[in-house]
Amino acid sequence: MTVTTSPTTWPTGPGAPLDDATIARIDAWWRAANYLSVGQIYLLDNPMLRTELARDHVKPRLLGHWGTTPGLNFVYAHLNRAIIERQLSTMYITGPGHGGPGLVANSYLEGRYSEVYPDVSQDDEGMRRLFRQFSFPGGIPSHVAPETPGSIHEGGELGYALSHAYGAAFDNPDLLVAAVVGDGEAETGPLATSWHSNKFVNPAKDGVVLPILHLNGYKIANPTVLARISDDELRALMVGYGHKPHFFTGGFDGEDHAAAHRRFAELLDVVLDEIAEIKARAADGDESRPMWPMIVLRTPKGWTCPPQIDGKRTEDSWRAHQVPLASARDTPEHLDILRGWLESYRAHELFDDAGRLVDDVAALAPAGELRMSANPHANGGLLMKDLRLPDFRDFAVDVPAPGATVNEATRVLGEYLTEVIRRNPTNFRIFGPDETASNRLQAVFDATDKVWNADFLDTDIDDHLARAGRVMEMLSEHQCQGWLEGYLLTGRHGMFNCYEAFIHIVDSMVNQHAKWLKVTRELPWRRPIASLNYLLSSHVWRQDHNGFSHQDPGFIDHVVNKKAEVVRVYLPFDANTLLSTYDHCLRSRNYVNVVVAGKQPNPNLLTMDEAVAHCERGVGIWDWAGTEVPGEDPDVVLGCAGDVPTIETLAAADLLRRHIPDLKVRVVNVVDLMRLQDSTEHPHGLSDRDFDTLFTTTRPVVFAYHGYPWLIHRLTYRRAGHSNIHVRGYKEEGTTTTPFDMVMLNDLDRFHLVMDVIDRVPGLGSRYASLRQRMQDERLRAREYTRTYGEDLPEIRDWVWPDAGETGTEASGPQTNAAASTGGDNE
Amino acid sequence: MTVTTSPTTWPTGPGAPLDDATIARIDAWWRAANYLSVGQIYLLDNPMLRTELARDHVKPRLLGHWGTTPGLNFVYAHLNRAIIERQLSTMYITGPGHGGPGLVANSYLEGRYSEVYPDVSQDDEGMRRLFRQFSFPGGIPSHVAPETPGSIHEGGELGYALSHAYGAAFDNPDLLVAAVVGDGEAETGPLATSWHSNKFVNPAKDGVVLPILHLNGYKIANPTVLARISDDELRALMVGYGHKPHFFTGGFDGEDHAAAHRRFAELLDVVLDEIAEIKARAADGDESRPMWPMIVLRTPKGWTCPPQIDGKRTEDSWRAHQVPLASARDTPEHLDILRGWLESYRAHELFDDAGRLVDDVAALAPAGELRMSANPHANGGLLMKDLRLPDFRDFAVDVPAPGATVNEATRVLGEYLTEVIRRNPTNFRIFGPDETASNRLQAVFDATDKVWNADFLDTDIDDHLARAGRVMEMLSEHQCQGWLEGYLLTGRHGMFNCYEAFIHIVDSMVNQHAKWLKVTRELPWRRPIASLNYLLSSHVWRQDHNGFSHQDPGFIDHVVNKKAEVVRVYLPFDANTLLSTYDHCLRSRNYVNVVVAGKQPNPNLLTMDEAVAHCERGVGIWDWAGTEVPGEDPDVVLGCAGDVPTIETLAAADLLRRHIPDLKVRVVNVVDLMRLQDSTEHPHGLSDRDFDTLFTTTRPVVFAYHGYPWLIHRLTYRRAGHSNIHVRGYKEEGTTTTPFDMVMLNDLDRFHLVMDVIDRVPGLGSRYASLRQRMQDERLRAREYTRTYGEDLPEIRDWVWPDAGETGTEASGPQTNAAASTGGDNE
Repeated sequence: MTVTTSPTTWPTGPGAPLDDATIARIDAWWRAANYLSVGQIYLLDNPMLRTELARDHVKPRLLGHWGTTPGLNFVYAHLNRAIIERQLSTMYITGPGHGGPGLVANSYLEGRYSEVYPDVSQDDEGMRRLFRQFSFPGGIPSHVAPETPGSIHEGGELGYALSHAYGAAFDNPDLLVAAVVGDGEAETGPLATSWHSNKFVNPAKDGVVLPILHLNGYKIANPTVLARISDDELRALMVGYGHKPHFFTGGFDGEDHAAAHRRFAELLDVVLDEIAEIKARAADGDESRPMWPMIVLRTPKGWTCPPQIDGKRTEDSWRAHQVPLASARDTPEHLDILRGWLESYRAHELFDDAGRLVDDVAALAPAGELRMSANPHANGGLLMKDLRLPDFRDFAVDVPAPGATVNEATRVLGEYLTEVIRRNPTNFRIFGPDETASNRLQAVFDATDKVWNADFLDTDIDDHLARAGRVMEMLSEHQCQGWLEGYLLTGRHGMFNCYEAFIHIVDSMVNQHAKWLKVTRELPWRRPIASLNYLLSSHVWRQDHNGFSHQDPGFIDHVVNKKAEVVRVYLPFDANTLLSTYDHCLRSRNYVNVVVAGKQPNPNLLTMDEAVAHCERGVGIWDWAGTEVPGEDPDVVLGCAGDVPTIETLAAADLLRRHIPDLKVRVVNVVDLMRLQDSTEHPHGLSDRDFDTLFTTTRPVVFAYHGYPWLIHRLTYRRAGHSNIHVRGYKEEGTTTTPFDMVMLNDLDRFHLVMDVIDRVPGLGSRYASLRQRMQDERLRAREYTRTYGEDLPEIRDWVWPDAGETGTEASGPQTNAAASTGGDNE
Repeated sequence: MTVTTSPTTWPTGPGAPLDDATIARIDAWWRAANYLSVGQIYLLDNPMLRTELARDHVKPRLLGHWGTTPGLNFVYAHLNRAIIERQLSTMYITGPGHGGPGLVANSYLEGRYSEVYPDVSQDDEGMRRLFRQFSFPGGIPSHVAPETPGSIHEGGELGYALSHAYGAAFDNPDLLVAAVVGDGEAETGPLATSWHSNKFVNPAKDGVVLPILHLNGYKIANPTVLARISDDELRALMVGYGHKPHFFTGGFDGEDHAAAHRRFAELLDVVLDEIAEIKARAADGDESRPMWPMIVLRTPKGWTCPPQIDGKRTEDSWRAHQVPLASARDTPEHLDILRGWLESYRAHELFDDAGRLVDDVAALAPAGELRMSANPHANGGLLMKDLRLPDFRDFAVDVPAPGATVNEATRVLGEYLTEVIRRNPTNFRIFGPDETASNRLQAVFDATDKVWNADFLDTDIDDHLARAGRVMEMLSEHQCQGWLEGYLLTGRHGMFNCYEAFIHIVDSMVNQHAKWLKVTRELPWRRPIASLNYLLSSHVWRQDHNGFSHQDPGFIDHVVNKKAEVVRVYLPFDANTLLSTYDHCLRSRNYVNVVVAGKQPNPNLLTMDEAVAHCERGVGIWDWAGTEVPGEDPDVVLGCAGDVPTIETLAAADLLRRHIPDLKVRVVNVVDLMRLQDSTEHPHGLSDRDFDTLFTTTRPVVFAYHGYPWLIHRLTYRRAGHSNIHVRGYKEEGTTTTPFDMVMLNDLDRFHLVMDVIDRVPGLGSRYASLRQRMQDERLRAREYTRTYGEDLPEIRDWVWPDAGETGTEASGPQTNAAASTGGDNE
């Protein structure tokens, strides 16, 4: 699969003058798109009005949004002319995604819709289906959804139009991304900061985003802020954002449509010429940041709908936002208004007797993949190439015995990612809110730089900043997520590294992406794309610098509400399991992969071969840590998931082995969290038989978990032995602490786990009352020590699995664990 | 409790010249604050360096953030001078909240810290405790947390400094809120849009926010965007945001500190004079939007720390972000650097032999409540007055029989809120992202207007916009949440109405607010504040216009991860229960109340007396809907929570009564979701005994729930009968549908519930195989109908509880249910 247009130099200047025939063709296309949009919202039948419009031709439930649609159609028609003139591969991002009927209409006019959905043919019957299906049970959504050809941006939740647009443009130097930003959307936070994306785009190596701020003036029931400040302020704002604004106002005071078309076409040529000049300068080696042009487009909301309905101003008002004539079926007079509105587009001039778009208008559709509805970038799976991945085993750390060596897991992952970057110089990027080094992935800077196209100072302080690179850092989780989504949806690969607590900032965005993936899986023409891979580090248990505000493991809970076929959650506990996990994630498709991994020095537990086998199973019994007798059920199962809980569990197993030597303990570690769920609920879920074999159906399970404890109950509530499972996790208790203080605050520490075992295994309570007391005393001693000395007891801090030898030493590479003694988390 | 300063006119001009003594005093205060900040980060003991600094005097784990701190201290010192000069009640919002040591230091210098925490006295021993406790186990957090006097803004998660500041300023006409915005924070989306808050503030009726954009140039490991664009662009950006920017650069190239102080003091006078002029104009009746001044403050990051450490530039670089000298204990040389750094502040000039701040420096602290650390607005509970609430029973709708009347619940609530607004004209506001009318609260506009201080057009189209009012609408959930938090934290009341799906946009913000509340409950000096009340409407089951992207009930799941004592969740199912619920919420304190309620016409089920009793219990058996025999356990329990699930449950009960007349059915409705949880886990939780009485321990429970089904399992997993509970809820299935199609897609419909009963009650499966088949057929027929006609079968759409009479009619008020036939949701 290839992109049709891949000009070696950016195309310049229009090839044809703006003659009256061209203007008329643009207007005809616009009328056709508007007609089809109105038809979708209102008509159940009689699409070409071949018979007189009757009440029964109108849908009983009128749904959808008209207000933004004519403006979107206006821009689309004009872009088509420019695309033909310049042969410019162009994507269309519609921030006001509820203008769905417009995008569907344009796709239909371009013939693309019928290619994808042959039932919706280019004739009367096809048009009937086109109208009927819109916002209709069993039909299509009202938004620019996955079902809409040419879309990567549904626009249901507002705020991400520009982030998605830039994500699409990165590493696509020949691509123009026209991004309409609604003036409602422009009030959102994510959109407000996404204008600064122009400091992160390279004029030579990336494509071009053309923002079109559409001031139609109104939201649902209010004017918009940006439409109600002076042009001077708005111009200053755009200049402040780093753009050269071009203002266009059209459609007011009865302006002739042809005149408006001519003016906008001329403006679009000016803007595209400016872009071509910038691209030419960049091709000559000037990659510095230009003031990219953008357009402020002021048109009436609901342009071309009835100016007044029932004496109330409708066009150019918030009343046009949704269905301006919701009363169309109520009275003959209202039906007549709808008829007149439909007829105003003169559809009989645009479609022939069979309902097919007439050739002269159809000529405004570009050819093949130059049609915005058929641009292959908007179906990224078509273009996606597998990553060239190194063998992650080459980056393994040496583990002579469990816990015998210590590493910072993410630092080791960074070395692997360095090689991923080297092998994939144009289709893999790492995104993060200024945390890539803090999360200890800094090895990647051996192979690449952080993209920066604002001003530079000297190289000492501008550490690995460059005009091009593979790492994208801006202090906005929204921006990182939006960029990455746009990058993935256009067929590339990437990952998002973030502090665990603050990934909640993009909760709503991952909702929308997961919904998008869920729907695309049901659309055979949408090809699979690379998974959205998170690396959440600086996690809840190690917020040494930051405390309570930085402690929240709930993102896992959030994502598991999404469709099971889309969501994966991994909790690798050491360097080798993290390597194995991430290799798997980078190879996967159409998932949201959440990987939580620590960045602090942590004992390595498994050799690479063991790690691969363990990750393959996702859950497993660690014989080396338990004391069970083959062929017998253990007395107790210690479950664990997550790096800190795993170490506490091992330490508890160690204590139990020493103090209750006859107790048969089984240690089960879970690295793929979804294994806990029922196989009927999640594709990764264990069968009941396998689950019961691991956890037994009758023995107490003390489970130490990284996050909120209830999630383990939620995932396992259907299991036979569920009532035996006792979970320790994060209970929203924490502040400034030492690492061990933190686990103690939440009763997840080794001593408490031992107490839990004593409390739960029948008969232990009386026999080991003094041991239980001693565990309490150990906790008090540990707490007292931290409160006196500000650090953990050496025997706790330096505890290693007894088979590991004297102390944990670093396994490989240039790593130090100095951070362990002085704190740790950056920020 | 009263505010000390309540000038009738805004104070103007400084009363004293900027003589050298004043400048020296500012510098002395600044040095003192910096010294105390460095001391907190590094010193375990020997706070005044009365003996030679030794390794053991240095904390073993060095935690915290130095970089932003000297800039925060600089501004604080200068504000103090201005406060004294002008007697201006001032709050200090520190966007870079990790500059915690600075705010603690200033509070300590003002004597406030010792008032709140007497152990931390103003002497050597107190200073030792001050230093030791910082970021120390059992001590205080590193951020400007609830523990910090004068703070309403922890700043742990970045982005909300200005929203909080404006929230504090609303309805506090005599208050100045100085808000430092870090240049890292300025990259976040929420902050980027919050500048536009100036279009929503009234110069006469609200206080003043003075934004201070602190360009210290670096984040954790990168420069900041706004520090690396030209002054021209930055000036344009601020003008575009509606501000008059004043630029200040100080501390570079060896500038004398006195010179920098003088220049900044002069600038601050200019800025405060401009504000006073604006306030004077407003007092004269000009409430139009001025270009409010703001300050761009460019100082070196880590100002006054060692310029270089180990040959690497530290001051004025990202290396100063956290602990610039993490190696202080490692070598004698590094210890010596720390000693030199500490000594550079000449603490012996600032503190006397007992460790007490010398009088001349202490004179820079304003008096009493004029101290920013003692401003009562920053401990809002001190100032909070109870709302004057009408009797919600006066707004009851008439319910002659269950389902006999129909209302849009939120519309009825709007009438009640109208009266709340009338009675509380200055301390209650409603916030929403352009959805107050869409969520059908529009009755409130009988009593008030929407605040708008951008441009106006004519009054027809600028519907209920005014320069002052009680409703705040901007299309930014972040902004709404941030404003409301700021408003509540300063002792007022309010609510946030939002589409259910998009409240996830503020997931991370509600995390932080819930954490704040959790901590303040443990601080006796922090007085309780009004709860944060959500009204989530346009919910998952009725996204008629919008479909899949607008369907997400997971916010409930999100909030229940927070501390049980902070979180309440209510699912009122009709107008009277919503009234009763909301009255309760508005009276509550220190909670996050999540109320989910429909806006569509819905049968009224309970009279007001019944509603009050039901809400009081939070959960109850509906005898009128069931068929059980007194004194016997029922055969099956139908549980329900949420308006749509409740109607489907009643319809299922109706079907069961008609088709399986001998089946003993119990209907249990849950309005207070936390009742399901164990009483040991949540203060609202039912005891096991009460729960078992309601749901039995042995009979099947078919539970129809508003949200994701697993939450019910999570809340009930400890209950004896848990394994009998079968939950239907939202399964991430939905797109454009009719209301009944939507419930069918998720198997929550009445027919499926009947099938569930047949499948689960022993013996029914064989006896009622044909009824089960008929239910399947009814579903197919219902689906077929929607796909043909685009609306629900009339007998389903118009179904009413059989005792209700012929049809549901509207109960009271000016409401229509026209929306029911044409769609419904706006947007």
